[in-house]
Amino acid sequence: MTHGPRYTALVDRLPASVPFVGPETAERERGRPFKARIGANESVFGPSPKAIEAMSREASETWKYGDSLSYDLRMALADRLGVGAGNIIVGEGIDGLLGYLVRLVVGEGDKVVTSFGAYPTFNYHVTGFGGELVTVPYRDDHEDPEALIAKAGEVGAKLVYIANPDNPMGTWHDAATIQRMIDAVPDGTLLVLDEAYLEFAPEGAAPAIDPDDARVIRMRTFSKAYGMAGARVGYAIGAEPLITAFNKIRNHFGMARISQAGALAALHDDAWLAQVQGKVSAARDRLAETARENGLTSLPSATNFVAIDCGADGDFARRVLAELVARDIFVRMPFAAPEDRCIRVSVGHPEDMDAFAEALPQALAAARA
Amino acid sequence: MTHGPRYTALVDRLPASVPFVGPETAERERGRPFKARIGANESVFGPSPKAIEAMSREASETWKYGDSLSYDLRMALADRLGVGAGNIIVGEGIDGLLGYLVRLVVGEGDKVVTSFGAYPTFNYHVTGFGGELVTVPYRDDHEDPEALIAKAGEVGAKLVYIANPDNPMGTWHDAATIQRMIDAVPDGTLLVLDEAYLEFAPEGAAPAIDPDDARVIRMRTFSKAYGMAGARVGYAIGAEPLITAFNKIRNHFGMARISQAGALAALHDDAWLAQVQGKVSAARDRLAETARENGLTSLPSATNFVAIDCGADGDFARRVLAELVARDIFVRMPFAAPEDRCIRVSVGHPEDMDAFAEALPQALAAARA
Repeated sequence: MTHGPRYTALVDRLPASVPFVGPETAERERGRPFKARIGANESVFGPSPKAIEAMSREASETWKYGDSLSYDLRMALADRLGVGAGNIIVGEGIDGLLGYLVRLVVGEGDKVVTSFGAYPTFNYHVTGFGGELVTVPYRDDHEDPEALIAKAGEVGAKLVYIANPDNPMGTWHDAATIQRMIDAVPDGTLLVLDEAYLEFAPEGAAPAIDPDDARVIRMRTFSKAYGMAGARVGYAIGAEPLITAFNKIRNHFGMARISQAGALAALHDDAWLAQVQGKVSAARDRLAETARENGLTSLPSATNFVAIDCGADGDFARRVLAELVARDIFVRMPFAAPEDRCIRVSVGHPEDMDAFAEALPQALAAARA
Repeated sequence: MTHGPRYTALVDRLPASVPFVGPETAERERGRPFKARIGANESVFGPSPKAIEAMSREASETWKYGDSLSYDLRMALADRLGVGAGNIIVGEGIDGLLGYLVRLVVGEGDKVVTSFGAYPTFNYHVTGFGGELVTVPYRDDHEDPEALIAKAGEVGAKLVYIANPDNPMGTWHDAATIQRMIDAVPDGTLLVLDEAYLEFAPEGAAPAIDPDDARVIRMRTFSKAYGMAGARVGYAIGAEPLITAFNKIRNHFGMARISQAGALAALHDDAWLAQVQGKVSAARDRLAETARENGLTSLPSATNFVAIDCGADGDFARRVLAELVARDIFVRMPFAAPEDRCIRVSVGHPEDMDAFAEALPQALAAARA
C-alpha cells in the first residue's frame, strides 16, 4: 500500500534544505523584530519613487496576467544594452533564471564547477536537478577565474559559475580578467556570469557584451541597485538560441504584472540609481571605518555589502554574528572556510550603520568572553 | 567544437511550445488593442479595493525580499480552511505549483492521466519533465472521474488531474462525485484536484478537506475570483509530507512581496468576493442569453466563463473565434474535439458583454459566409 505520491528517485535523495533563512523567519523565531535589516544585501534605499508610483498605479490592473513576453521591459533592456530583444530573457529574479538554466543543461551526474563557498542558491538548483558540484577554493578572498576554467575543462563541466562582483566577499575582477575567462571557456561548457552587483562596481568591471557569444550567459537583476528584491525581476543576456531555449520550460505567465511595471520605470530613472550608488559608496566607507575602529580589517567591496574580517576563525565569526543578531542586527556571513572568518554586512541608512557601529564592539567583546 | 551549452537529452527533445499566447502578444501582432479582454478568464471586476490599497502601500517596501515562508498568508489560509499551516504551500500561481508538483513526482517515461483537451499548462509541465500523458475523453462536456481513475489504475499513473469546476468547459461535479474519485485513487497515484474556479461554483461542489489524506492535493488561486491573476499567488492544500517536499525544490524567495500583501488583504474581504460572485453570475446569464439570441446553446457554467456551442465543428468555431478577434473581442476556445465546437467567453463588465453581443452575430455571419 503506497497511498500518496511516489517521488522521483532524485527527489527522494534530496535534503529538505533551504539556501537561506529569511529575516522574517528569524524575527518570528526570536519573537521580536530586527533593529537593522542589513543581512540580505537588500537596498534599504528602496526603489526609485518613479518605480513605486508605477507599481502603485499598476495595482488596480493586477486582474490581468502579466505580459508573458515581458515585451516592454525586454525592449527597454535591449535598447539600453545594445543587444537584440532576442538576447534577453526576463525571469523571476536571478534565482528563478538560475533554476531554469540548470534545468536546461544539467542532468543526473553532470558536473558543474563553482567556488567553494560561493552563492548557495545556485548550488541548490544544481543539486536539485541531480548535478554534481565540483568546487575550487577562493584565492585571497577572490573567486579564481583560472582555477575555475581549468577545473571545468578537467571534469568536462556543463556549467561554470562566477559572480563578478562576488557574493559573499564583495571582491571583483576587472573586465580584462573576465574576458580572458570567457575566451578560455572549454568547449561544451557554459560560463554563468552572475553580475547581480555590477551597478555597485567601479567602471571597468564588466567586459563588453557580445550578444552572439555562446560561451557565456550573464545574469543581472532589479533586486540590488534598483532596490526591488521583493518584486522578483531578473534578466539574462545571452546568445539567441540559449535565450530561446528558456521558452521550452519556463513558467510563461510567471512574471508579476506590478513587478514588470516597476522594473520598467526603475530602469529609466538613472538619477535615482546614481544617488543610490553614492549612498552605497558612503555607507561602505562607514562600515570599513567601523571595522577599523574595532581593530578589524574589511575587504574592499564592489557591492552593497562589506565583508569584515573578524580576525580569527569561523567559530569566532559565528559567535560575533550570533551576538549581533542577539542585539537585533540582522547580518549574515560566508558559509565556508577560510572566508567564514568574516561577517558580511549590507550597507544601510546612516541609522542602520550607527546601530551596527554600536553593536559591533559589544558583540566582539561577548564573542571573546 | 561544441561552443556553448549542451542541453539535456530531454530539453533537446522538447518543442519550443507555449501553452498560451497572451493578449498583449496578440495586440502587438494585430497592431491594435482589444475592445473587450474576455479570453483569459481574468476577473475584469478586479481585486478588492483593500487588496489594491495593500499592494500600493507595500510598493515602497519592495526593497525587501518577500517572506520565504509566506507565513502570514499561510496562517490566514489555514485558519480559513481549518487545516494546519503545514498543510498549505503558497506558490507562484497554480501554474508554478503544478510545475513544482510535476517535478517532485514525474520522471522520464512516468505516466500521467488527464482529460483530452484539459488544462494545457499542466500538460506542458508533464512533458517538460519527461512524463508521458495518457488521456481519456470528456463525457458530455464533463471531465469523467470514473474513466480518469480507471485509466490511472490501468497505466500506473503517478498523477491524475481533474479540474472541478472544469476549464475550458465550465462544467462541474458535485462533492460526492469528487469524494468518490478521491476514495478510488489507486495506490501510488496522486490526484491533482485543480479548484481554481471553485469560488464561482454552487455550494456543494467541493468535498470537505481532509488535510491528512495523502491521495489528493488541491490547488486554489487568487487569480480568478480574487481578481489577482497578475500577482501570481496560488496555493496547494495537502498532507504535510507532500507539502514539505515542495521545500526541497521550490524557489524559496520566489514570491513577490506586494503579491503576498495583496492576497492577504483580498482573503479578508468577503464582501468584495460576494459582490464579484454576484456580478459573475449575472454576466454568465447575459452570455447565455446572447447565445440564445443567436440561435446557439451554451453550457451551464460554474466558472467565470461560458462555453458557447457554435453548433457545428471545430473549424467553424475557429472561424467564429477569428472573426470575433478581428472585431477586437479577445476570446479563446477549447483545443480538442469535440469540445472545440465551442468558444469560451470570460464574463466581463456590462460594456464587455455588450461588445460581445454586438460582435457575435456579425462573427457568425462572417464565419458562415
